[in-house]
Amino acid sequence: MKYFPGLFITFEGIEGTGKSTHARRLYAFLEENGHPVLFTAEPGGTEVGDQIRSILLHPKTGGIDAITELFLFEASRREHVLHVIQPALQSGRIVLCVRFCDSTIAYQGYGRGLSIEMIRNLNRLATNDLVPDLTLLLDIDPEEGLRRSLHHTSPQELRFEEEFLKKKDVLCSIRNGFFKIVAEDPKRFQVISTVESKDVVFEKIKNYVLSMIQDKKRRNVP
Amino acid sequence: MKYFPGLFITFEGIEGTGKSTHARRLYAFLEENGHPVLFTAEPGGTEVGDQIRSILLHPKTGGIDAITELFLFEASRREHVLHVIQPALQSGRIVLCVRFCDSTIAYQGYGRGLSIEMIRNLNRLATNDLVPDLTLLLDIDPEEGLRRSLHHTSPQELRFEEEFLKKKDVLCSIRNGFFKIVAEDPKRFQVISTVESKDVVFEKIKNYVLSMIQDKKRRNVP
Repeated sequence: MKYFPGLFITFEGIEGTGKSTHARRLYAFLEENGHPVLFTAEPGGTEVGDQIRSILLHPKTGGIDAITELFLFEASRREHVLHVIQPALQSGRIVLCVRFCDSTIAYQGYGRGLSIEMIRNLNRLATNDLVPDLTLLLDIDPEEGLRRSLHHTSPQELRFEEEFLKKKDVLCSIRNGFFKIVAEDPKRFQVISTVESKDVVFEKIKNYVLSMIQDKKRRNVP
Repeated sequence: MKYFPGLFITFEGIEGTGKSTHARRLYAFLEENGHPVLFTAEPGGTEVGDQIRSILLHPKTGGIDAITELFLFEASRREHVLHVIQPALQSGRIVLCVRFCDSTIAYQGYGRGLSIEMIRNLNRLATNDLVPDLTLLLDIDPEEGLRRSLHHTSPQELRFEEEFLKKKDVLCSIRNGFFKIVAEDPKRFQVISTVESKDVVFEKIKNYVLSMIQDKKRRNVP
C-alpha cells in the first residue's frame, strides 16, 4: 500500500442511507473551512467510467450477468483510481467518494453470490491496493431505506433498484455483508445509524472526519 | 469443463495473418457443405460487447491502462460466451471465433506485461472454463504482418495498431507469447505458416477442420 499525503474517505451503505447527501454536505463544509477537498462517486467519475456506467445502468441491457457486471465495475474503478482518486490524494486533497470496493463485495459478493475472495483480488488489481483511510458506513433498516430511496430514483437507475431493492431479503444480505466487511477491518470503519435526524447524523460524520484530519496532521508533524 | 455437442474452433495470431479472411472463407465452405456453422469475433459480438468494443477502440480514450483494458475484454468475452458461443455449441453448431482467450494472454500478458496467471484466472471466470476444441494459430513474420495489416485498418482500429503494431519488438513478444501458449497445450493447436499462398493456407485449415469434424462424429457414434 502506497502512502499518499491526502485523506481518502469513502461513504458506504445500502440505498436510502443518504450517502450522497451527507458526502456533498461534508464537501461544502470542508471547502468553506479551507480544506482542499474532492467529491466523487462510483461507478463513473471518468470518461471511460461514465461510458461503462451507462452500460451498467441502461435498461436495455436487462438483467446483466453478475460476472460481466463485476468486470465492468472494476474497469470503471481502475480508471477512477488512476485518473481521479490517486492524483487528488497525491496532491494532498481530502477525497470523499460515494461507494468503493466495499460496495462491490457487499452487492456482487453477498448480494449476487460471487466469491468474496475473487472480488477482493479484483479490487486489489483495480486499485493498486488502495484502501480508504476512513469508511463511513451509513446504516438503515432495509425497508426504510427502500422507501426513502424510491423517492429520488431516476428511470436510468431503476435497473439496480429493481434488481436489488425490490428483493428485501437480498437487501438484508447486502446489509449483513457490510457488517461482515466491518468485522474484518473494524479500525477503518465508523458505522452510523441514520434513524436520527439528518443534522444529528451529519454532526457525527463531521466530528469523525475532523478528528481524522487532526490525527493526520499530528502524524505529519515530527 | 462442460461438454457441448458443437465444435468450438478459434483463430489466433498477430495482425496481418488473415485470421478473419480465412475464418470467413471456412464459414462459407462449411455452410455450402451443409454444416451448421456460426462466425463470430472478439471483442464484441453482443450488444454489451459492442458498446465495450467502442470504448476499447475509440481513439478519444487515448492510451488506455492495461488493467482497465483487461477488465473490459473479459466483460465483453463473458457476454459473448453466455449469449453467443455457448448457445451455438449447445445447439450443435460449429463456432468459428476470431480471437479468444489466447489473444488476451498474448497481448495483455506477453505484450503489455500483465501477470499470465492472473489473466488465466480471469479468462476462466469469464468463460466458465470453456476451452476451444481446436485453435488455428496463423503465423507470420511480424514485419510482414505489420505491412499487410496496415492495408485494411479502419481509423477506429488505429489505437491498437498504433499501440502494438508500430512497436516491432512488442509484436515479436506477442508472437513468442503465442508459441509459449502452444507449448503448454500443444494438442489443442495447429500452427499454420502464412508465407504460402492464401489457397494453400486455406487448404490446410480446411483439412484440419474436416478431420476434426470426422473425429467428433466418430466419438459420438458408439
